[in-house]
Amino acid sequence: MSVASLSERAAGAPPAAPLSDWIAARQAHFEQFIQARLPLPEREPRRLHEAMRYAVLNGGKRVRPLLVYAAGEFGAAAEAVLDPIAAAIEFVHAYSLVHDDMPCMDDDVLRRGKPTVHVAFDEATAMLTGDALQAEAFGILAGAPVPPEACVALVRELAQAAGTLGMCGGKAIDLAAVGRSMSAAQLETMHRMKTGALLRASVTMGAAAGRVTPAERAALERYADAVGLAFQIVDDVLDASATSAELGKTAGKDLQQSKPTYVSVLGTEAARRWAERLRAEAHDALSALGAEAQPRTARLRQLADLIVQRRS
Amino acid sequence: MSVASLSERAAGAPPAAPLSDWIAARQAHFEQFIQARLPLPEREPRRLHEAMRYAVLNGGKRVRPLLVYAAGEFGAAAEAVLDPIAAAIEFVHAYSLVHDDMPCMDDDVLRRGKPTVHVAFDEATAMLTGDALQAEAFGILAGAPVPPEACVALVRELAQAAGTLGMCGGKAIDLAAVGRSMSAAQLETMHRMKTGALLRASVTMGAAAGRVTPAERAALERYADAVGLAFQIVDDVLDASATSAELGKTAGKDLQQSKPTYVSVLGTEAARRWAERLRAEAHDALSALGAEAQPRTARLRQLADLIVQRRS
Repeated sequence: MSVASLSERAAGAPPAAPLSDWIAARQAHFEQFIQARLPLPEREPRRLHEAMRYAVLNGGKRVRPLLVYAAGEFGAAAEAVLDPIAAAIEFVHAYSLVHDDMPCMDDDVLRRGKPTVHVAFDEATAMLTGDALQAEAFGILAGAPVPPEACVALVRELAQAAGTLGMCGGKAIDLAAVGRSMSAAQLETMHRMKTGALLRASVTMGAAAGRVTPAERAALERYADAVGLAFQIVDDVLDASATSAELGKTAGKDLQQSKPTYVSVLGTEAARRWAERLRAEAHDALSALGAEAQPRTARLRQLADLIVQRRS
Repeated sequence: MSVASLSERAAGAPPAAPLSDWIAARQAHFEQFIQARLPLPEREPRRLHEAMRYAVLNGGKRVRPLLVYAAGEFGAAAEAVLDPIAAAIEFVHAYSLVHDDMPCMDDDVLRRGKPTVHVAFDEATAMLTGDALQAEAFGILAGAPVPPEACVALVRELAQAAGTLGMCGGKAIDLAAVGRSMSAAQLETMHRMKTGALLRASVTMGAAAGRVTPAERAALERYADAVGLAFQIVDDVLDASATSAELGKTAGKDLQQSKPTYVSVLGTEAARRWAERLRAEAHDALSALGAEAQPRTARLRQLADLIVQRRS
């Protein structure tokens, strides 16, 4: 089903813009929002504020904010509510990259084509940058213009996605896995936590900002689970097959660090096929919402395609 | 005014227990609460969960939780509300110590008489431990049994105390100060952020959990500002004068790292006198609440004494 045919079915809805236009507009809007929300570089402590801005304002693809906005469109949420949610999630993601890149973790010098924070600044500043971004994430979320009950639920959801049962827990499993073999099931558990949890939260928190029924929320969770895992599988495939220039970060790190990946466990072709199956699963989850709901799912559907078919 | 005479004036209140008994009881209660709230060590990822428990359950003095409980007693807050607030603040404090001790920051091997987390585990685990504890702090706070508006306000307050205008910001100024001279005013700004902000939040968040008028809140803020700064001055004096065995951490680090401290800027005697003046200031702030309020201020008053007169 094409985007055009979907949008035509939305009663009174304007024709949907092509995905690339929508993405560009959302990204531009989001950049403006976080530019204004990040501490100003002229304000003390300057070096920390500069490093925080450097870490976040780095031309990232903003996959998580895009999922927030797309899920928000599904529930017809106001932009003013989605902005702080998207920013909070992106700040958590950005802090995790800063800490991941440090010598005691992945020891990486390149991120989105630029020196990593500990290289451009120093290790102590990189540590504080990550720490401060996480605090900032919860601060922004606590300022979201939603009813207090909803705000508390959002904080709880982000804390869970970022914590030991989500991102940090997945990273700990990843650390323990270096140089060991892992089954596909173990790998899946790890990645559902490490990257999946925050991607899932992007969808569920974006949806929660609008009006969604419990059944719709369940379908969106199924969608988010599939997309979250597909994202990581594609990441593994790209790490093994693309160049550093294409990725804007050091390629081939997984093999070099003897980390089990979908490529090492399944092989590239099987990994690609699995990502495709997850894309179909994500689409199915949205289709199961019924014909009425389809116009509101267009962006989510397109983002699932984009996440699986991306080349960097 | 003695504790006994204060307690006698509280209509119907039982005679106040000696401070040492109150502290022991509060500490025991708090340990039990966080024991149950920290992720179980048998649960995956085990190493991370073990490290988180190691970092928090280490026999700390629990100054911040004690301030939360004392401020909570002022506002007659329920224990069930104070527990998660105290835990959230202590988790943020514990995470900051784990990250501070790492080689890229203070590079310390001893904390409360035991190997620091990166020594007992490894650097990557220490980083994740701190990151996960911060997420856990906000998660616990978002689960506090208070009305949602109050919960959102607590999250906002903790985020601010932990972020670039609080703890992380103060640490960044501290980093920039190594090997440089600082005026007493600059030092004060740094410490009001680095340690003062979280100690202040302990008082204001504990008070907010109960019933306090705006005027009472203002007085408690004045108390908390004085106590927060006094705490750091005493820390500086102890770092310069006590032994590692007395402190349970490496003594003399400030001088060794050429960090400006109250001792290096003012000298030991002047620093001690300043801490005493701040203790008087904290007492004055409480006295200004009027005779009626005095019985409810007893613990806060005693804690100010304890913080200034401690020997480790």
